[in-house]
Amino acid sequence: MRYELYYWPMIQGRGEFVRLALEDAGADYVDVARRAGGMDKMVKLMASPRLDPPPFAPPFLRAGELVVAQTANILLFLGARLGLAPKNEAGRLWVHQLQLTIADWLLEVHDVHHPIGAGLYYEQQKREARRRAADFRDARLPKFLDYFESVLESDTALHYAHLSLFQMVEGLRYAFPRAMKRLEPEYPRLVQLHDRVSRRPRLRKYLASKRRLPFNRQGIFRHYPELDG
Amino acid sequence: MRYELYYWPMIQGRGEFVRLALEDAGADYVDVARRAGGMDKMVKLMASPRLDPPPFAPPFLRAGELVVAQTANILLFLGARLGLAPKNEAGRLWVHQLQLTIADWLLEVHDVHHPIGAGLYYEQQKREARRRAADFRDARLPKFLDYFESVLESDTALHYAHLSLFQMVEGLRYAFPRAMKRLEPEYPRLVQLHDRVSRRPRLRKYLASKRRLPFNRQGIFRHYPELDG
Repeated sequence: MRYELYYWPMIQGRGEFVRLALEDAGADYVDVARRAGGMDKMVKLMASPRLDPPPFAPPFLRAGELVVAQTANILLFLGARLGLAPKNEAGRLWVHQLQLTIADWLLEVHDVHHPIGAGLYYEQQKREARRRAADFRDARLPKFLDYFESVLESDTALHYAHLSLFQMVEGLRYAFPRAMKRLEPEYPRLVQLHDRVSRRPRLRKYLASKRRLPFNRQGIFRHYPELDG
Repeated sequence: MRYELYYWPMIQGRGEFVRLALEDAGADYVDVARRAGGMDKMVKLMASPRLDPPPFAPPFLRAGELVVAQTANILLFLGARLGLAPKNEAGRLWVHQLQLTIADWLLEVHDVHHPIGAGLYYEQQKREARRRAADFRDARLPKFLDYFESVLESDTALHYAHLSLFQMVEGLRYAFPRAMKRLEPEYPRLVQLHDRVSRRPRLRKYLASKRRLPFNRQGIFRHYPELDG
């Protein structure tokens, strides 16, 4: 099965959570919009009657006739097929629940720099972003870190939500280097998980390749020093 | 199977999306935290080693030994059991995808009155809320309404995401009566779906009962006239 991933080609964004699973499993996939002419192909497909009704937004994945959207839903679908999820229903629901909590966390990371509207520029909401960033650093970031640190006490067999947690640590280190430097010593299990994931042979290759886009100020994780406290 | 639903007893909130499915299906369930002493029971259960690791937040559902959290995940689990989801995998993923898009929409409704931080009072972020509300009414609300109106062109057999869309229309009418009065004529399929769901025999009884909490200013949908344009 050759999978087709459709996502904006200039950022890691939500697509990266899917890429990490595909790359870790050594799956056969095409990152459609990053090929020449691929962005046009994605936009045309979203407007075509072949996808009727279309997904609300990228990322979406084509697997033969099936089109699946919403990052956590794509991972729910892929997890079983790629050997990155438990085989029993209770385990699958648990990992999906973690992934949905990561999705909530990720959206809060985004809204730090876009508290007023996703359609406005950061520069149009800088003042509000400063206030939201303070609340994020002081309340929300430790709350999510506490939660996942406690989850890692008992959750050991690797699954796709762990790959996503690696990405959260990577992104947070990029966006909030000062806050993370201060907080990380309290979260040894998360740091250890991050290191363990980064050493997985296929991922280590992927992370060193050109397929791994750099973080930047168009993505979800953005480094604005004034938001880092 | 007697289900146990755990959710904050003073608001409809996210729990309501689960209640609507349970009520529509005539399922045997207990709304634990709304019983005498139930709130203590919920808080104790979340801290107990029986739930280790616990969910990040309510709502969560107990079904025998299984505990499932995250609203969309609970509905994914219940949908198949209550006859409120397609039987094939493609259909189940599609309905879950819709539910996740509704979850995104619901969070944006919440963040209209809490753009800076969920832990702060509305009164501490009124100025920012006004700006966010303008963006929500002008850009985000029509975008989501457009999307679900187009989905309803082809999506006809009733499933749990339709019950959630009913709740979105109800909540938006309560929170943004002026904006909805202006917008609704453009969305006849959504209005028709709302009416169709509200007439389902079990739901009609439920909606008229004391089990249906009223909307209020502690919930996700809140009516502040200054945010309604």
